Amino acid sequence: MIIVLKSNVTEDQIRHVIERIESLGMKAHLSRGTYRTIIGVIGDERKLQGEPITAIPGVADVVPILPPFKLASLEAHPTPSIVNVAGIKIGGGHLAMIAGPCAVEDAERMHIIAAAVKAAGANIFRGSDNKPRTSPYAYQGMGEDGLKLLREVGDQHGMPIVTEVMDPRRVEMVAEYADMIQIGARNMQNFTLLSEVGQTKKPVLLKRGMSATIKDLLMSAEYILAQGNSQLVLCERGVKGFDTETRNMYDVAAVPAVKALSHLPIIVDPSHATGRPDLIPPCALAGVAAGADGVHIEVHNCPEKALSDGPQALLPEQYAALAKQIAALAKLLGKEISALEGVPA
Amino acid sequence: MIIVLKSNVTEDQIRHVIERIESLGMKAHLSRGTYRTIIGVIGDERKLQGEPITAIPGVADVVPILPPFKLASLEAHPTPSIVNVAGIKIGGGHLAMIAGPCAVEDAERMHIIAAAVKAAGANIFRGSDNKPRTSPYAYQGMGEDGLKLLREVGDQHGMPIVTEVMDPRRVEMVAEYADMIQIGARNMQNFTLLSEVGQTKKPVLLKRGMSATIKDLLMSAEYILAQGNSQLVLCERGVKGFDTETRNMYDVAAVPAVKALSHLPIIVDPSHATGRPDLIPPCALAGVAAGADGVHIEVHNCPEKALSDGPQALLPEQYAALAKQIAALAKLLGKEISALEGVPA
Amino acid sequence: MIIVLKSNVTEDQIRHVIERIESLGMKAHLSRGTYRTIIGVIGDERKLQGEPITAIPGVADVVPILPPFKLASLEAHPTPSIVNVAGIKIGGGHLAMIAGPCAVEDAERMHIIAAAVKAAGANIFRGSDNKPRTSPYAYQGMGEDGLKLLREVGDQHGMPIVTEVMDPRRVEMVAEYADMIQIGARNMQNFTLLSEVGQTKKPVLLKRGMSATIKDLLMSAEYILAQGNSQLVLCERGVKGFDTETRNMYDVAAVPAVKALSHLPIIVDPSHATGRPDLIPPCALAGVAAGADGVHIEVHNCPEKALSDGPQALLPEQYAALAKQIAALAKLLGKEISALEGVPA
Amino acid sequence: MIIVLKSNVTEDQIRHVIERIESLGMKAHLSRGTYRTIIGVIGDERKLQGEPITAIPGVADVVPILPPFKLASLEAHPTPSIVNVAGIKIGGGHLAMIAGPCAVEDAERMHIIAAAVKAAGANIFRGSDNKPRTSPYAYQGMGEDGLKLLREVGDQHGMPIVTEVMDPRRVEMVAEYADMIQIGARNMQNFTLLSEVGQTKKPVLLKRGMSATIKDLLMSAEYILAQGNSQLVLCERGVKGFDTETRNMYDVAAVPAVKALSHLPIIVDPSHATGRPDLIPPCALAGVAAGADGVHIEVHNCPEKALSDGPQALLPEQYAALAKQIAALAKLLGKEISALEGVPA
Repeated sequence: MIIVLKSNVTEDQIRHVIERIESLGMKAHLSRGTYRTIIGVIGDERKLQGEPITAIPGVADVVPILPPFKLASLEAHPTPSIVNVAGIKIGGGHLAMIAGPCAVEDAERMHIIAAAVKAAGANIFRGSDNKPRTSPYAYQGMGEDGLKLLREVGDQHGMPIVTEVMDPRRVEMVAEYADMIQIGARNMQNFTLLSEVGQTKKPVLLKRGMSATIKDLLMSAEYILAQGNSQLVLCERGVKGFDTETRNMYDVAAVPAVKALSHLPIIVDPSHATGRPDLIPPCALAGVAAGADGVHIEVHNCPEKALSDGPQALLPEQYAALAKQIAALAKLLGKEISALEGVPA
Repeated sequence: MIIVLKSNVTEDQIRHVIERIESLGMKAHLSRGTYRTIIGVIGDERKLQGEPITAIPGVADVVPILPPFKLASLEAHPTPSIVNVAGIKIGGGHLAMIAGPCAVEDAERMHIIAAAVKAAGANIFRGSDNKPRTSPYAYQGMGEDGLKLLREVGDQHGMPIVTEVMDPRRVEMVAEYADMIQIGARNMQNFTLLSEVGQTKKPVLLKRGMSATIKDLLMSAEYILAQGNSQLVLCERGVKGFDTETRNMYDVAAVPAVKALSHLPIIVDPSHATGRPDLIPPCALAGVAAGADGVHIEVHNCPEKALSDGPQALLPEQYAALAKQIAALAKLLGKEISALEGVPA
Repeated sequence: MIIVLKSNVTEDQIRHVIERIESLGMKAHLSRGTYRTIIGVIGDERKLQGEPITAIPGVADVVPILPPFKLASLEAHPTPSIVNVAGIKIGGGHLAMIAGPCAVEDAERMHIIAAAVKAAGANIFRGSDNKPRTSPYAYQGMGEDGLKLLREVGDQHGMPIVTEVMDPRRVEMVAEYADMIQIGARNMQNFTLLSEVGQTKKPVLLKRGMSATIKDLLMSAEYILAQGNSQLVLCERGVKGFDTETRNMYDVAAVPAVKALSHLPIIVDPSHATGRPDLIPPCALAGVAAGADGVHIEVHNCPEKALSDGPQALLPEQYAALAKQIAALAKLLGKEISALEGVPA
Repeated sequence: MIIVLKSNVTEDQIRHVIERIESLGMKAHLSRGTYRTIIGVIGDERKLQGEPITAIPGVADVVPILPPFKLASLEAHPTPSIVNVAGIKIGGGHLAMIAGPCAVEDAERMHIIAAAVKAAGANIFRGSDNKPRTSPYAYQGMGEDGLKLLREVGDQHGMPIVTEVMDPRRVEMVAEYADMIQIGARNMQNFTLLSEVGQTKKPVLLKRGMSATIKDLLMSAEYILAQGNSQLVLCERGVKGFDTETRNMYDVAAVPAVKALSHLPIIVDPSHATGRPDLIPPCALAGVAAGADGVHIEVHNCPEKALSDGPQALLPEQYAALAKQIAALAKLLGKEISALEGVPA
């Protein structure tokens, strides 16, 4: 950490800053320039997180040098982590192919979609019953019955399942049914929920919040890791942008940018990022080309009757065509897609 | 709601769209233009929220006409609502002067700050123990003891208190101690928490999320109102912006823009919006000039030792100077500031 | 400037960085921390602008300490500058009241509007003939005749006039007719135009670009100042935002943020910032309360027939009501509004 | 175009709106709903561009149905356009491989870089002498000599050249030397420059502005097309974002989104989009996977001594490795890269 002092800082103030730094267990190294004096803080600056250094009189600015997270960093774990979701590997050259409807729907439809995406090459089935809906008047889900149905569909088709949790009181129940727990974008900084999920041993899919920087995302990852759960996969799903042409701004550069800072796998979700079926296939391929460890796609066999997010779902045949392209691209890039039993690789 | 059809839409598709609309209880009114055909949906389009109309084949776009919220709208309540926080009025010409430290601190410091802000003209005391911290290694609060202390300070100084809640399991406990419950920006779309808070009868202070549009904010308000709690105050506290000069982008136009859509009071929080003590006073005055129903300011008597957000706190004497200016501006604008007992108005 | 070295930097690389810094005329001060080594660059770092320091092997990051501009800075001119537009003062406690139609319209309408805004308290008349239009099919102006007409209107009503220039080949001509030359938001980084305008001695009104940071704005100001023209006024007119509720995001905090860095006057333009007549008055007052040195408002007597930007114009009677409120607020804040001859102050 | 009327609109106002629409040569189709009355405007709504319809009393909102551009639209030209730059095809399955230094540098360096990128597979050489520099104190170029040198290098290596123009007075001169003229992001809405460039018959490379929506970009394209120049290529180079991790936010979804609206080719520039050499290769591949018609990369043999933008340049060997990957990806996608004479395809 570097502390930049104000141009009119007094000697008394400088002394006070140094004392404060030393009282916090760090060493201070003073450097007087022509225009400004700076203090280099020597030691692990992460111990100072939350300390109001810029509020000390005479301080103009504080420049962190180390990333604010530890467990999520490459320093802590220099090789890519591989997360295992009931046998399906994600990261370190292994791609997750997550597909399914947005909401948990009726049993018949769930089986049809699961069979279709599995045949197309998906290796994890998704569906969420407990979903954030911006309107209190929109469909709000069916509770534990939804989880049971999802589990049943996963078991019958031999697919691991991922589902979202919003309420810390439901984490335990969700962990019983699901193979992977999803934290949605709107809850990326719901620290209560992050802690709760960190205490399970289930793999977690953590989506980037709509106004979260890459460092914010990694700090939320740190919350989960700090509870002892290292089975964590990140997900880029679009951030808030100014162009209404797409639902969100798909930040594909976040994929290599995360990899430059962290060992954690990161997948992409072009369904939420773009909100437009015609843009999903090119954006899915872009994500894989940029190095993503998997692709999360919403698929529905009758989007106009979907209980949630129908307008952004691919039809099963569209998904099948895309999955073929992803497989070819993965091969070109030397990546593998863990196959489910009973599906030809 | 207006449904714009694709330029190559077929007659069969048009019939199907009309049938779908009618099956949802609305009437459809077809209008064929030179370039495009549109369908006007006649009836309360809010019943269609969550229906995937744009996923119907042949549909190019859906244009809502009514605002997506009801209870929060001016149609439901054409005059400004006035919220009453233990005797202090907010809205309809009454300004809230909310001040206090970011976190709940030690008892002595709390009393000193409360006495200072009360003397300066504050009429509600703030302080949060259960706070979102982006780092899992930062100070996380002291739990129920923090609430007890806050209550004690409020009682001794005769000030209503407002404090944040993050965990739905703590809502009941917080409601016992606090006069007003705050939902922070990061939880604006934590719908579980919104529903829980909506079920108490305590006044709520709902902060705008960092990537929330004004309509998103009003939809979150609708969640709380829909549970039967109409004691609701909104708060503009800055949204995500691209300029690092300020911590967030202070969207002061949101104040009159909310008032053009809703009867709910809205206050401003220039502390979080700017993150810079030197910008807080001018931005506070700007908020009041724009029509805000109150000002929320963080005040600390030793910012460099604050447990949270010290760098953006005003000193008590800075707050006193600002409060004087706010009072003069309020008078010019014909607004009133509810006085606490024992403080000269 | 502080140079942060990579964690795996070699001694050879460190030597090379130091040599490079010294060859550029600066001194280097090495400081080895526990985790990272940094180099403090001693000397005027602005000489290094444009030098690709971060491309030197071993360099992780470069942290500037001084603002990148000189002439625009408070260090160069510690007291607020006052710009004089044909007798009307802007800055240092003097407010500009700029008003008029967006485009130059027909003579009769121009005279009616000029008379109305003058009577209401405006002290500078605006109108632009050479305007950026996003559509090549929209009205493009009438050329020199427009300037002549504007001059005539200004002369007859005794009002200084401000008008926009887009084409460097027209700067000389515009400077002949106008009292103040406006550079629009879309041209804030049209460096060719900035240099050309800097070479006239006419006062300049420089609007902030839609994606410009405050430092970007001040760097564009520096271009004009560097040509020897110090008669410069900045203008906040809204930046690109994600909420379509308003046309742009009105960054009112930019007013005090500019004043913390620069001596240049800054006014606000709530017409372009919000694009909504109902939001213009509260946002104009907010700007003045935040410390703006003036207010720029579009006024038209028949907005539905305006040649440009009609939907965001105030009617003359709306402007008169607003001007009265601004005058009262200015008085409260101890600001003055230079009066035109023949108008009671 | 759909005109949504206010809920309290009067019959007189409705009559007036209809008369206004008819006086502008369109037909009006009235539709009364339960909550709101709307008017469908029948005819080519683009004739109404710039008409202040929302300023007509009683009008709440105006919803365009047609895209605001014509010549750039798929309706005008339903198949992908192919632009020919001195023999190199761009669009319709042909990829441009544009590479070279940011600025025009000394002759020896230019020849070395040109030879290297040609050998690696580049088919157009870039270099700009007349460049926007945010600082007036940074290197500003060498004028016509720079153009001569660039032409010489292009001729000697048998490569077409592209270079930027900023000043409308220099367009003619640049057109004499260059094979393709670039309009930079900061000038995307410099309409004077767009018109001037539209009047040459040279191919144009138009970069997206940092706060430009996709429709804004296509409207700027329309300016050039409307002057009779149809040799136009667009370029996504990152827009303003809130995360400082990358220089800009790389909007890769803009590639398929443009293709859904327009026949014009669009390439990507990951150098400016990310500003980080380590992110350029993955983001270049992402662009091609998303359907881009080419890749624009800055290459320098000694980035730390580059006259401009050194920190974001790839080394020639890094470019060669990337070009190989792009070629393999292009083959997988069925795209072709026009080869220069003397280079094995």
